[in-house]
Amino acid sequence: MTDYYQKTVNDEALPIVRGNYADPSIVKVGNDYYMTHSSYEYMPGLIIWHSTDLIHWEAVGAALKEFNGIVWAPELVYEQGEFVIYFPANRMNWVTKTKDPRGDWSRPIPLEVNVIDPGHITDDHGTRYLHLAGGHVVELSDDGLKVEGELKKVYEHWIYPSDWIVEGCSPEGPKLVKKADYYYYTIALGGTSGPPTSHMIVSSRSKTPTGPWEHSPENPIIRTKSKDEKWWSKGHGTIFEGPDEQWYIVYHAYEENLHTIGRQTLISPITWTEDGWYRVDVANNEWKALDAPAESVEESADRFREGSLSLYWQWKRTVPLFRYWYEQSGPLKILGTADSGDYSPMLYMARHRYYTFEIEASVTGDAELQLLVFYDQDHYVGIGFSQDGIRVLRPYKQVGKKPVTVKNKIRLKIINHDHIVRFQYRDSEEAEWQNYDKVLDTSGLNHNTLGGFLSLRPGIEVTGKGSAKLYSYHYQGKSDV
Amino acid sequence: MTDYYQKTVNDEALPIVRGNYADPSIVKVGNDYYMTHSSYEYMPGLIIWHSTDLIHWEAVGAALKEFNGIVWAPELVYEQGEFVIYFPANRMNWVTKTKDPRGDWSRPIPLEVNVIDPGHITDDHGTRYLHLAGGHVVELSDDGLKVEGELKKVYEHWIYPSDWIVEGCSPEGPKLVKKADYYYYTIALGGTSGPPTSHMIVSSRSKTPTGPWEHSPENPIIRTKSKDEKWWSKGHGTIFEGPDEQWYIVYHAYEENLHTIGRQTLISPITWTEDGWYRVDVANNEWKALDAPAESVEESADRFREGSLSLYWQWKRTVPLFRYWYEQSGPLKILGTADSGDYSPMLYMARHRYYTFEIEASVTGDAELQLLVFYDQDHYVGIGFSQDGIRVLRPYKQVGKKPVTVKNKIRLKIINHDHIVRFQYRDSEEAEWQNYDKVLDTSGLNHNTLGGFLSLRPGIEVTGKGSAKLYSYHYQGKSDV
Repeated sequence: MTDYYQKTVNDEALPIVRGNYADPSIVKVGNDYYMTHSSYEYMPGLIIWHSTDLIHWEAVGAALKEFNGIVWAPELVYEQGEFVIYFPANRMNWVTKTKDPRGDWSRPIPLEVNVIDPGHITDDHGTRYLHLAGGHVVELSDDGLKVEGELKKVYEHWIYPSDWIVEGCSPEGPKLVKKADYYYYTIALGGTSGPPTSHMIVSSRSKTPTGPWEHSPENPIIRTKSKDEKWWSKGHGTIFEGPDEQWYIVYHAYEENLHTIGRQTLISPITWTEDGWYRVDVANNEWKALDAPAESVEESADRFREGSLSLYWQWKRTVPLFRYWYEQSGPLKILGTADSGDYSPMLYMARHRYYTFEIEASVTGDAELQLLVFYDQDHYVGIGFSQDGIRVLRPYKQVGKKPVTVKNKIRLKIINHDHIVRFQYRDSEEAEWQNYDKVLDTSGLNHNTLGGFLSLRPGIEVTGKGSAKLYSYHYQGKSDV
Repeated sequence: MTDYYQKTVNDEALPIVRGNYADPSIVKVGNDYYMTHSSYEYMPGLIIWHSTDLIHWEAVGAALKEFNGIVWAPELVYEQGEFVIYFPANRMNWVTKTKDPRGDWSRPIPLEVNVIDPGHITDDHGTRYLHLAGGHVVELSDDGLKVEGELKKVYEHWIYPSDWIVEGCSPEGPKLVKKADYYYYTIALGGTSGPPTSHMIVSSRSKTPTGPWEHSPENPIIRTKSKDEKWWSKGHGTIFEGPDEQWYIVYHAYEENLHTIGRQTLISPITWTEDGWYRVDVANNEWKALDAPAESVEESADRFREGSLSLYWQWKRTVPLFRYWYEQSGPLKILGTADSGDYSPMLYMARHRYYTFEIEASVTGDAELQLLVFYDQDHYVGIGFSQDGIRVLRPYKQVGKKPVTVKNKIRLKIINHDHIVRFQYRDSEEAEWQNYDKVLDTSGLNHNTLGGFLSLRPGIEVTGKGSAKLYSYHYQGKSDV
C-alpha cells in the first residue's frame, strides 16, 4: 500500500477506472458520484459508474441499450431531479434521462446540432447552455430537450507554444462549473491520441457562462511533457467538488506505451489559488487521505449464469441476441454464425498491461470456438478450437488445424504480457496447460494504427454450423501503475 | 568513427544493408560479393547488391522485373559460370539465372516443389541439392533447372529450451556450406517476427550433404536474448569466407522497437574452433580492420530524370507504367488514377529511425498529389495536395481540405521521428515551411500488426483526373546504430 500510494502521489495521478473509459463526465448528487464515458460502437453503451469515495467505482448500469451511432464524449448532469446525459452520435447530439441511473433511461431524443463534446451549464437565471467543441455554444430549452437559438462561437483557446508536439490543435471537451463569482471553463487542446505528448487541459473563466474569457495563468493545468512519463496524452478534464470541500479533476490518459487498452480514467486533486484559479496540487491532506487500492492486481470471473454478465462485456454495434441462449443455471450457449454473416464477438474489457483470460467451454457440431484478442473484424489474433483441432487465427493468414484430443471440456487461455500474446489450451480434467506454438506481438493493434478509438479486448465468438457452451471465464490483470 | 566502431563491436553486429532487406543470401565470385533478399510483393524484385569489402554495398540490378507471386527467402549461388537464384513464390519455387548480375535475368522457371526457403549445395560428386524449410531436401538435375526425385526430410532441428519466448518453432532458411570434411548446415528457428526474442541461428554438420547431422555445441550461434538489445529477432544466417580467410555470417534483424522498417541485413565475424565448429567472435583483427561507415546518416536525392530512379523505388505488384511519363530532361509526370481503379503508390525504401522525405512537384487538373507513409492500400497516412487545398490522409477517416496558396511549385515533406510523423508544406519559392496541424503515431504500421512482411515506406501517388509532375525528392536518414 505504501509503495503504491507514494508512486501515485509522485505521479499526481490515480487511475480510478481502468480500461477503455475515456472522456469522463462526472456528477455529484448528495454523497454519490456518478460517471460515464465515450462508448464508441460498443454496446451496451454509456456505462454508468458509481462511487462514494472517488476511488472505488462500480459499473451499475448502461444508459444506452440500442445502437444509436458511434458515441463520443458525453456529458452527465443532474437537473430538475433527473440524471441527464447529452452525447454526440451519428453526426448530431442526443439527450437521454432517468430518475434512476441504475435503471432504464429514456429513448434518446435528437438535438439538431452537429458539433461534438457537449458540456452543460445552467446559469444563475436558470438558462441552460450546451457548450461544444471548437469554442461553440448553443442555448437549450428550459427542459433541456431542445436546442433554442443559433450555434455561436464564444471562446478562443489558449495558445500553447508552437514547438510542443501535439496531435493537432482540436479545442474539445468544454466543461463548465460555477464557483463563487466565476464560470470556470475547462477544455482540452492538442488532440487526444498520436504522439505521447499530445493533449492537455487548460482553463479559463468569466463572469458569464458565455464569456468573455480570461485564460488561467496556471495553463496548462495538466499535460504529458515527455514519453518517459507513466501516462501519455493526458487531457479532457472536468473539475468538481468532492467530499470535505476538496476539489478534484477527472480526466483520461493512455498508460505509457499501452495504446491497446485505450484511454483510462484518472483523478488528481486541485487547489484554488488566492486569485481564484485552480491547479493540480497533491501536497494536501485530503489527497493523502484517499484510500487508494492496495495494489493494481484485479481478478474477475463468472460462470455465465443468466443475468450475471458484467458490464465489462460488450459487443460492437448490435448485440446478436438471437445466437445467445442461457441454459437453466448456465452455461451460456452461443450458436455459430452459420449463414448469418454476423461475426461479432462478445468482448471483455482488458484493463491491464499484463493479463490472462481463460474460458471453459464445449463445442458441438461443426462450430469453431474462437478465443480472441480483438480490435475489429479486420484486426485481431486468436485461437480457434473445433472438433477437428486447434489453430491460431489472424485475418491476414490462414493456417491449418493441429489435432488435439479433448475428452471433457476444453479450456483456452490468452496470456498477454505487455503486448506479447501467447495461447494455451487443455482438457478441463488435465492439469497441464499446452502451449500453442505461436507467440504474437499485438502492440500495433490500437487507435493510432487503426482509428476508431476502440481497444484490444479479449473476445469470444463461435463460427460455422453448430454451437458452443461457455461454462466460465476468468480474467486476472496486473499493472505497473 | 571511433564511437560507432566501438558500439558495433560491442553489439557483435554491423548493419550493412539498411531497410526492408531480410533473408540475405550471399555469394562470393572472385573478389566480388553479391547478395539478394526477400522482396515480397515489391517490384522490381530480388534486388542485387554488390560489394568488394562487405561493408559498402550498392544495389546494381534486379533479377525480377515482372510480378511472379510473393517472393520470400531466395538463394543466390554461382554455378557453372552463371549466377543463379532459387526463390519461392506463388506456392512453388522458381529458378532464374544470368551471366551478368547487373543485367537481365532469364524468365523464371517453375520448380515443382512447394516448400519455402531454398538452400543450394553441390556435393563433391557434382550432385546438386535444394534444401528447404522444415528439414526437407530435394535433388536437382545437373543443370539445376529441374527437381529430380522426391522431397525428403533429412534434418531434425536442435531443441531450444522450452521457456524461450519465440514466435514459433519454424525451422527455416537452411544454408549449406562445405568446409574441409564437413557440410555445415545453418538454419533459423523460433519464427522471424512477433516478440523481440523470437528467431535464432543454429548450426549442425555432417560428412554428407543430407545428414545424419550432428548439432553444434555452440548453439544457438546468434539469438536476441532480451528486448533491451539493439537488434531484435536476429536470425536467418548464411556463413561464408570473406577476404583474407576470415569467415563471416550475414543475417537479418529488426532494429529495436522499429518493426516498421522491416528486417535489415547485418554481418558478424565468426571463428572456427579446434573441433571444427563456428561461433561469432568479434575479438579478432580482421573484424577490427573493417572500415565501418563513419556515421549512420544518409542522404539521397534525385531530380527524376529518365533512367535515374534508384532501386530504392518500388511498387507493390505490377508497376502501373502507363501512368508514368518522363518529360525530356525530367520531371517525371504521373497521371492520376482517374477511372483505372489502380491505387499503387511509388514507394521509396525507408531505412532509418529518423528521416525526412521531401518532394517538389506541381499539380494539374483535378488531381490530388499524395505524399504518403505507406504500408498497404488499407494502412497508411499522408498528406494530399490539390488545387483545392491540402489535407491529411488516413484510410479510416476523411477530413476536409484546408485552402493553401501556391503560386509556384509545391514542396511537401514528411518528418518521421521514431514513428511520430509530421507533415510540412510550402510554396517552392518561399523559405518557411508550414506545419500541417496533425501529428500521427505510425509505430503500429508493421508486419506484426498487419502481416505480409511489408515495411512502412514513403510513397507518392496521384489520384483523380489530371496529373502531377515530380521535380525532385530528397531523403535524409539517421539511425542510433
